Amino acid sequence: MDIEEFRKAGYQAIDRICDFYYSLEKRPVVPPVQPGYLLNALPDSPPEKGEDFGIIADDYQKLILPGLTHWQHPSFFAYFPTACTFEGMLGDLYSSSTPNPGFNWSSSPACTELEMVTMDWSARMLGLADHFLNSSGTGGGVIQTTSSDSALVVAVAARSLYQRTRPGTNLEKLVIYVTSQTHSLGVKASLVLGLECRILDVRAEDEYALRGETLKAALEEDIGKGKHPFVLIATVGTTSSGAIDRLDEIGEVAKDYPSLWIHVDAAWAGVTLACPEYRKVARLEEINKYAASIGTNFHKWGLVNFDAALLWVKSREDLTDALDVTPEFLRTKQSDAGAVIDYRNWHLGLGRRFRSLKIWFVLRSYGVEGFQKYIRKCIELNRHFAALVEASPDFSIVTPPSFALTVFRLIPRGAELSEESLNDLNRSLYARLGARHEVLLTQTLLNGTFCVRFAVGAERTRKEHVEHAWQLIQEEAGVALKDWTARVAK
Amino acid sequence: MDIEEFRKAGYQAIDRICDFYYSLEKRPVVPPVQPGYLLNALPDSPPEKGEDFGIIADDYQKLILPGLTHWQHPSFFAYFPTACTFEGMLGDLYSSSTPNPGFNWSSSPACTELEMVTMDWSARMLGLADHFLNSSGTGGGVIQTTSSDSALVVAVAARSLYQRTRPGTNLEKLVIYVTSQTHSLGVKASLVLGLECRILDVRAEDEYALRGETLKAALEEDIGKGKHPFVLIATVGTTSSGAIDRLDEIGEVAKDYPSLWIHVDAAWAGVTLACPEYRKVARLEEINKYAASIGTNFHKWGLVNFDAALLWVKSREDLTDALDVTPEFLRTKQSDAGAVIDYRNWHLGLGRRFRSLKIWFVLRSYGVEGFQKYIRKCIELNRHFAALVEASPDFSIVTPPSFALTVFRLIPRGAELSEESLNDLNRSLYARLGARHEVLLTQTLLNGTFCVRFAVGAERTRKEHVEHAWQLIQEEAGVALKDWTARVAK
Repeated sequence: MDIEEFRKAGYQAIDRICDFYYSLEKRPVVPPVQPGYLLNALPDSPPEKGEDFGIIADDYQKLILPGLTHWQHPSFFAYFPTACTFEGMLGDLYSSSTPNPGFNWSSSPACTELEMVTMDWSARMLGLADHFLNSSGTGGGVIQTTSSDSALVVAVAARSLYQRTRPGTNLEKLVIYVTSQTHSLGVKASLVLGLECRILDVRAEDEYALRGETLKAALEEDIGKGKHPFVLIATVGTTSSGAIDRLDEIGEVAKDYPSLWIHVDAAWAGVTLACPEYRKVARLEEINKYAASIGTNFHKWGLVNFDAALLWVKSREDLTDALDVTPEFLRTKQSDAGAVIDYRNWHLGLGRRFRSLKIWFVLRSYGVEGFQKYIRKCIELNRHFAALVEASPDFSIVTPPSFALTVFRLIPRGAELSEESLNDLNRSLYARLGARHEVLLTQTLLNGTFCVRFAVGAERTRKEHVEHAWQLIQEEAGVALKDWTARVAK
Repeated sequence: MDIEEFRKAGYQAIDRICDFYYSLEKRPVVPPVQPGYLLNALPDSPPEKGEDFGIIADDYQKLILPGLTHWQHPSFFAYFPTACTFEGMLGDLYSSSTPNPGFNWSSSPACTELEMVTMDWSARMLGLADHFLNSSGTGGGVIQTTSSDSALVVAVAARSLYQRTRPGTNLEKLVIYVTSQTHSLGVKASLVLGLECRILDVRAEDEYALRGETLKAALEEDIGKGKHPFVLIATVGTTSSGAIDRLDEIGEVAKDYPSLWIHVDAAWAGVTLACPEYRKVARLEEINKYAASIGTNFHKWGLVNFDAALLWVKSREDLTDALDVTPEFLRTKQSDAGAVIDYRNWHLGLGRRFRSLKIWFVLRSYGVEGFQKYIRKCIELNRHFAALVEASPDFSIVTPPSFALTVFRLIPRGAELSEESLNDLNRSLYARLGARHEVLLTQTLLNGTFCVRFAVGAERTRKEHVEHAWQLIQEEAGVALKDWTARVAK
């Protein structure tokens, strides 16, 4: 493809993306395809001779678009949102137009420096303490691929620090702490590293937040057994229910265990820190006081297209001491002089994409005010949903709504049902909802209670979409209850 | 930004990318900027109010573009190439226009299925055995971010398999095998996992390839000491010199050590397998016979924009047994039924980008023939460079040229210089070359010998660029030699 062919194909792509967004609301959220639909439609091998790009682009429209789940659909209320803004697309487009492996400064100076700048911008917008800034010279921020990568990198840094300061500590004795509500990234980090993972209990009456006393008891028990808990992955805004671990109590307990690295995973809810009114509930003060590292994903609820997992650490040396490998062919006079960050020593791989560009585009185009407005709108819409649930005699909220997430279940009025029956009934409701293509929600289990999650986050979601979803939920609940009653009566 | 503003900004981006490519050849390869150039040009915080996108886009032209190293420049001969094709950009643009976390089938069906298809297409193009195909149902292919991720994932799978089959094996006794020429990904995997890494010696007379006898001696020694070597990262095309480990001998030795996982890192040179005439030298037969896993990066020399690190394994269960974490909120009826691949259990994170789209675009637009033509052209240009070096009385090739890579150094005619002096002189040459902005090469050390690397791979490189680079090298060598002689004479 030559330059003019690219211009033509590029214009066409832009036009077709515009068409797609004009039609988005009318499309199903969940595509009506079955497993294998694409496998069966494509040949086994690539073509011998090159094809005209017009045909390829048409095949994208015909074969790929109809097989996508639309996370940016205004009626998408599942999982957590994945951002998809036009500014993010443009950032990706410019970034993709030049290769920028960005592993050290000289490999792409703008790539390194813009990451340093945008990570400081983001930290300031969220109110993070100066010790997390790149400009501090001691701490700093880096873009990772996902919060799983953030947690893994942090666990490696924490393990390496722990082993350096306590030589001879056996890997078999090291323990990663998470809670039963921590994202799967905690258990995955332990699988990757081959280390023990202790899953701390949380209680419904604590709104599924980790309490200080639970942590303290576990530390005492494990240390008594000769084990070495070295990192705690605490959460601000768990996936299941948006729970916020009690960082105030955790921080106090950890004062007696200074070798315990506290990582705060705020992958979804961290963006609320951009709004001063949510800083208390999202525990900004404690994050700044106690956390050795904190991560939030702008690609979730932060308007920046996937991937943009932001990670800040209090001590950059803890990362580089753990991860620095500098062979001869990567030595440069700039990094030898220590003038710039070599980001390759701050993450798992060597090469990396120029991801700060889309963050720069988004933060400048929205401004802090625009970012705050979007977060507040999502929270407001979720409040509206929660109010509808609360006002219904047949539904119940399981745990207090958290930011833009409500966890609820069907508890039909008048029926005296066991927990098992309620779970069964709610699974039926969820299965029915899952068969509808015009809305998407996800399920969760909270200490054995089967629930349905409703998370607001798509930029185009308005009040009418929330109300439409609520109407569908009520309809399906009616049918599910009828079916279930008939089934049980048999 | 609304849809029509996006159309306008999108057209502008396409036009500016076209302008950029028309001007590329006249631009310096290495930007004339100093560390801090961008840090000092940007404010400390994001703007409070949103800015007009026109201003932001202009700032990209003014501040970012002039600070990029141009890896796709026809005079870029450093490191290894990083692909940047228009087809790749279009793939990224479409992919970025919809959010596709792709962690399981239902989260984005097309995303999962197109990855299954394009990994099989790529495997077939490279001649990989059927047991690496997704359609085999037992092995399969997955796109990772970088070859470091590929190696790490493989090491985790190998460790997990080893520990499952030999319960009670201490982590402290596990050993990862690499050679002194293995990419830093080997040592980095061992740092991440906290495991011992044994660096096997290679010799100049073996062209820096790992021999079977070296492996055998190390295995005997380590096992004799009660250690457990569980994975060998062998290389087809090392970064330093393009060395190809003796997979024939390694495979024979490994027959006596069936628990040793052989991973072949062919990050750069793997793409040559697309050309039947290179399959013997790149050891396709032995890869198919002995490797448990093989990786190659299409984002290097394979025309697909970063990132596209292709990894195939012979046994998919080895990945999922090591990495599967399925919490309630990720359970779906499709994956419960086992009908589709849940790629989240094949890599480190959970979410992932829709990267197969750009592979699909590139393979269809170029066809196998176009892909082969490009590889052959690069190798031909490198042969031309190597011939120029060989014909010069003042330069010497250090180890036989490998595909599109030549490693050489200055050995002035008539001068009887010690190895130390030669290294000193070549460092001076390299420093002088590094100060030129119109061409870029990189350095390496081969068993103590300082060398300069010349790697061809940019799509726009023609014979004249190779000859221009050679002219610059000769010029700088002349000055370096004069300076060095004067310095030594003092």
